[in-house]
Amino acid sequence: MLHQIDHVGIACYDLEAAIARYESVFDLTVASRELHEDQGVREAMLRVGEGIGGASWIQLLEPTGPDTPVGKFLARRGEGIHHIGYRVTDITAALEAIGARGVRLLDQRPRHGSMGAAIAFLHPADMGRVLTELVQPPGA
Amino acid sequence: MLHQIDHVGIACYDLEAAIARYESVFDLTVASRELHEDQGVREAMLRVGEGIGGASWIQLLEPTGPDTPVGKFLARRGEGIHHIGYRVTDITAALEAIGARGVRLLDQRPRHGSMGAAIAFLHPADMGRVLTELVQPPGA
Repeated sequence: MLHQIDHVGIACYDLEAAIARYESVFDLTVASRELHEDQGVREAMLRVGEGIGGASWIQLLEPTGPDTPVGKFLARRGEGIHHIGYRVTDITAALEAIGARGVRLLDQRPRHGSMGAAIAFLHPADMGRVLTELVQPPGA
Repeated sequence: MLHQIDHVGIACYDLEAAIARYESVFDLTVASRELHEDQGVREAMLRVGEGIGGASWIQLLEPTGPDTPVGKFLARRGEGIHHIGYRVTDITAALEAIGARGVRLLDQRPRHGSMGAAIAFLHPADMGRVLTELVQPPGA
């Protein structure tokens, strides 16, 4: 069902500072910057290597305000790893299978995510307090 | 420098329950179980897909007691994502380069990690509170 770890999402206070850190420490480069106002997040995707199904990614996340999911995460936990995203080929089928196995879905249907992907989140309470995302890249 | 997200480490209270969750929700299977008494951790590696440089992995971590790094993490934060590991080809060269860029190294030299890999951790205080590991698989 899962093809690869697609990305790890990291919450930060200052997106530009976080980008600068990952660029300077690891020689990573930013492939995409996006503002998702509906999700209250400003983000950057940095490519890590070249897997057979495409690269894996670091997703740096800065909230647009305190009253957003990432803003609340920062207030509660501080900076750090926010979620893990797994790459799938058929996100609709994967959601149906996972839901049938008793995991609550935060997104009953896929919605638009970074870089044109279809994404959906699973409830962390059913995943050992791990916020878990499914990602179907465009064209997959 | 980084070839792929190698694994995500997830701290849990009950390793067998966590394994059962990942097996049943995602059809993953355990490739390796190890006890690292020196690190105070009992762990399982579950394979996620087949990248060109090898699979990516979920590493489930149960502490052997409260006075261990993962035990203290659980007491402070509860269950959840503990660290991220990146795959490198030459861990000694990577550590030298990263140290020269001002990141403190928790391991000045590589040590033995899961499944025969050489590993080293970077200081989370220099990585935006992300505990970050480098992994050179055996034979890499």
